[in-house]
Amino acid sequence: MMWNSPKVGILGGGQLGRMLTESANRLNIDVRILDAENAPAKQISAHENHTVGHFNDQQAVQELAKTCDVVTAEIEHVNTQALEAVASQVKIEPSWEAIRIIQNKYDQKKHLSKFNIPMADYRELTQNTPEELVQIGEQLGFPLMLKSKTLAYDGRGNYPVKSKEEIPAALEALKERPLYAEKWANFTMELAVIVVKTNDSVLSYPTVETVQEDSVCKLVYAPARNVSDIINKKAQELARNAVAAFKGKGVFGVEMFLLEDDSILLCEIASRVHNSGHYTIEGCGLSQFDTHLRAILDLPIPAQSVELRQPSVMLNIIGGATPDSHLKVAERALSIPNASIHLYSKGAARPGRKMGHITVTAATMYEAETFIQPLIDTVDEIRAQRSDIKTAAAKSGASKPTPTVGVIMGSDSDLKTLVPGLKLLRDYFGIDPEVEITSAHRTPNYMAEYAEKAASRGIKVIIAAAGGAAHLPGMAAAHTALPVIGVPVKGSALDGVDSLYSIVQMPRGVPVATVGINNSINAALLAARILGSYEPAVQRKVEQYAENAKVENLELKGVKMRELGWEKYFEQM
Amino acid sequence: MMWNSPKVGILGGGQLGRMLTESANRLNIDVRILDAENAPAKQISAHENHTVGHFNDQQAVQELAKTCDVVTAEIEHVNTQALEAVASQVKIEPSWEAIRIIQNKYDQKKHLSKFNIPMADYRELTQNTPEELVQIGEQLGFPLMLKSKTLAYDGRGNYPVKSKEEIPAALEALKERPLYAEKWANFTMELAVIVVKTNDSVLSYPTVETVQEDSVCKLVYAPARNVSDIINKKAQELARNAVAAFKGKGVFGVEMFLLEDDSILLCEIASRVHNSGHYTIEGCGLSQFDTHLRAILDLPIPAQSVELRQPSVMLNIIGGATPDSHLKVAERALSIPNASIHLYSKGAARPGRKMGHITVTAATMYEAETFIQPLIDTVDEIRAQRSDIKTAAAKSGASKPTPTVGVIMGSDSDLKTLVPGLKLLRDYFGIDPEVEITSAHRTPNYMAEYAEKAASRGIKVIIAAAGGAAHLPGMAAAHTALPVIGVPVKGSALDGVDSLYSIVQMPRGVPVATVGINNSINAALLAARILGSYEPAVQRKVEQYAENAKVENLELKGVKMRELGWEKYFEQM
Repeated sequence: MMWNSPKVGILGGGQLGRMLTESANRLNIDVRILDAENAPAKQISAHENHTVGHFNDQQAVQELAKTCDVVTAEIEHVNTQALEAVASQVKIEPSWEAIRIIQNKYDQKKHLSKFNIPMADYRELTQNTPEELVQIGEQLGFPLMLKSKTLAYDGRGNYPVKSKEEIPAALEALKERPLYAEKWANFTMELAVIVVKTNDSVLSYPTVETVQEDSVCKLVYAPARNVSDIINKKAQELARNAVAAFKGKGVFGVEMFLLEDDSILLCEIASRVHNSGHYTIEGCGLSQFDTHLRAILDLPIPAQSVELRQPSVMLNIIGGATPDSHLKVAERALSIPNASIHLYSKGAARPGRKMGHITVTAATMYEAETFIQPLIDTVDEIRAQRSDIKTAAAKSGASKPTPTVGVIMGSDSDLKTLVPGLKLLRDYFGIDPEVEITSAHRTPNYMAEYAEKAASRGIKVIIAAAGGAAHLPGMAAAHTALPVIGVPVKGSALDGVDSLYSIVQMPRGVPVATVGINNSINAALLAARILGSYEPAVQRKVEQYAENAKVENLELKGVKMRELGWEKYFEQM
Repeated sequence: MMWNSPKVGILGGGQLGRMLTESANRLNIDVRILDAENAPAKQISAHENHTVGHFNDQQAVQELAKTCDVVTAEIEHVNTQALEAVASQVKIEPSWEAIRIIQNKYDQKKHLSKFNIPMADYRELTQNTPEELVQIGEQLGFPLMLKSKTLAYDGRGNYPVKSKEEIPAALEALKERPLYAEKWANFTMELAVIVVKTNDSVLSYPTVETVQEDSVCKLVYAPARNVSDIINKKAQELARNAVAAFKGKGVFGVEMFLLEDDSILLCEIASRVHNSGHYTIEGCGLSQFDTHLRAILDLPIPAQSVELRQPSVMLNIIGGATPDSHLKVAERALSIPNASIHLYSKGAARPGRKMGHITVTAATMYEAETFIQPLIDTVDEIRAQRSDIKTAAAKSGASKPTPTVGVIMGSDSDLKTLVPGLKLLRDYFGIDPEVEITSAHRTPNYMAEYAEKAASRGIKVIIAAAGGAAHLPGMAAAHTALPVIGVPVKGSALDGVDSLYSIVQMPRGVPVATVGINNSINAALLAARILGSYEPAVQRKVEQYAENAKVENLELKGVKMRELGWEKYFEQM
């Protein structure tokens, strides 16, 4: 049995160590923290067996190791000599070798190159002279990124060099550091994947989208928005392959660039739980903190528990202009539906310091984005007041919420038929659908691409309207696993029966949910019923709609007819 | 701003105090626990300001109160004299008056009677003599429940008296206690609702179903299974009204009986966070522990955050025959998808002691029940080994998982048309639908009731098949907010076009998702697509189905036709 109190030592007791301790507490795992007295992690683990000291102090590491079964770290910038020295006495997870390679970003890239992991091209600097960097610039092109090999995180140790002229300033900024240069990655989105390496498998959480601001992670969207399932899976695979190149067990954070041609480059790996995985606390069955502990203790991890339970958005709470200005975000978050607030108990803030985070979950990404928007606004206001931020206007990383209903029509002549349904969705249900013209006959490829990517963009149901030889609903259904609602549009001939038959009489295997001819209202209501099966707020609105219709028929019209008599009523119609 | 470190004192540091502390830690709320050294709650809150002592010790309560802004309790059996004595120095939430009334169950009932809360009839015993109880038995009937007014919980202090003959034994078992007798409630289900009383509102979490075993809570199903929305709302309202009768703020647990005639009786109230609300940690945006702290500190609670995020099942981990036999459940839970394990760090178990709990969440109740079943089996095995349980066979409280797809047909002659779709759902998708015969014309009331209750029973989509003047799909749609899929069945005349028109040409306001004539396969696939929009595992199966069809057409049939030539192929067909 595992519950013979496994003792887990953690180098570092900041917020990551603290959240690992939260997970450990729930399994009665005995954690022992090496960090300063009263570090955030120590505050929630009351016993005498923590070690006071710095996680780089060799003697302190030895002291901690003596009392533990496994030692792990919340940070990669640890003293790997100290870990190597105790490796014969205690298990180190992940291995000190992995941490040593990863903590030096140049070594990390060299190592990953051997495993054919796609990365931006790079060159080592051996002399740190302007001449050397000019030569490298000719090879990699400008702009390029000058980077410190070691002790680089949250943008520190990086310097973007836009042209030859900036070389002296860049070398001055990073002087006395071991350096390398990296080709500029012209990315459209930054992706991240949390990978769990266990004794015998490599698992991955979903691909998320990260938004950085001032070189620090600001927002994480899980899953990544507007990214196809193919890219989602490709990023997970790349991340797993990269982590598989290292020795040891535990959680690794993998950051990647998505380029315009849909190719993916690895940016960097962290040999620890990662800011891009905080959403997993509420978003998944097991959090990255749960699975890190399970991995290093050889406990089982069910594959489904690392899948997403609900779309989630994570927002960091960063120190602002004054020691407590960041608390405005937390305070505002108290009124946000489904917002889980995590404060790290680090005391007074300094500008740019990570003080906490907030995760909002919802049945759809649209809803989650709508909920969190006021918090992003608050963060932007606080940032605008920060003395170290010189930019005039704070720019939000969030775009418009992604829609859950996609409406397509074969021709703009179908639009007038769709308008009553579109208005009902938008004005009554508050569901703003995405509306597109795409014809099965005139734009067959675009139609196919639209349908194939719809699910991964967050669409839950497609409404397709077409007339005549109405192929659009059925063809869309053939290109997606989503439910497709077909609206037969009455054309110039055959009274719409041609469209109806074309839509409803699909062959076995590819269903279309057909509604009555021209009945876009029913298509909209059916879409709302489908969403409502999993979104209680929508289902209540459907019930209310029926209730309103009942009142209108039974009470208003019925009463009026009884009052006036049928003949007079008819005259007034 | 609230984060001037509000100091919250808690009387009692058991598992409830510990889970309150978990919530407090995330908001940097400073909790101070009154309990023994190293009590579960103190283990996760490291500082010098806890108080050592018993939560009934007047002096210890005074000591705690001195250093706090608000004092609350994890148990109602506290010394309310001690609380009354410090009430001028510190806020007590909920009020000591509420706790005093609630801790005496007879006073609780008397108080609630004044507010017209429905409860089982009851009589006070003033002399505790057999004669007195015989007389009461004549009024209330047998069986009746003899109850201690005070210090009663988890079945302790209750004695079921089946007949006159058992009166002496009952009085002996509860001798020297203040007693009352209660009319037997012949309930079909036990319900519970967590209520949050704030400064200016009374909020309720959803109605859950509780399953007791050996007079201790074993399982909680959120939401209650097979309970209509009307009852769900009625129970919430009753619970809110009952809690509104008391003074003070915070979370209250309300237990109720659901009777055969769908009426609801209040069973009892706890003036604190409650075992029936543990599911809220994973199941809701804010847990009962979060909202208790917010309520007593006058912090906002968004209404949506107390709604259910996903169906959840909670299973208690109870001490077994040996001090660690309960850990088998936790160990087994490590391999259960989406199982969140909570161990309370209470040390060695004794039989019947609450040592932890597990919550499983899933997109549907069906899935959650399927996941948790192996754990219920393990619990039943452990219980069977317990020395204090004499019953021969352990009986599980769980029934068959609730289906997510409801299939109805107007007549059994429609069944043969439905069979291919039913088989596809069951055998390929692993979705076992509920199948019923109900005719819009022959059993209009049953049909209406079926449709009205479907959503609350966990059904997400209805498939309705009918022929001729096919009214069933449309009538079902008129009685539910769920998506209804209509299958026109080809009858003896008109080739099924009559059924198709009857189903598809619904008036605006009541949509039916119509598929082709006799095409139950497409109805089944459409149902799977609808479920798949929110359940990734189902969506993957839909994709796989399309992939299989592609392979079959493109590779198998296409290759064969190329090999044989069209003429030979046709001859072989």
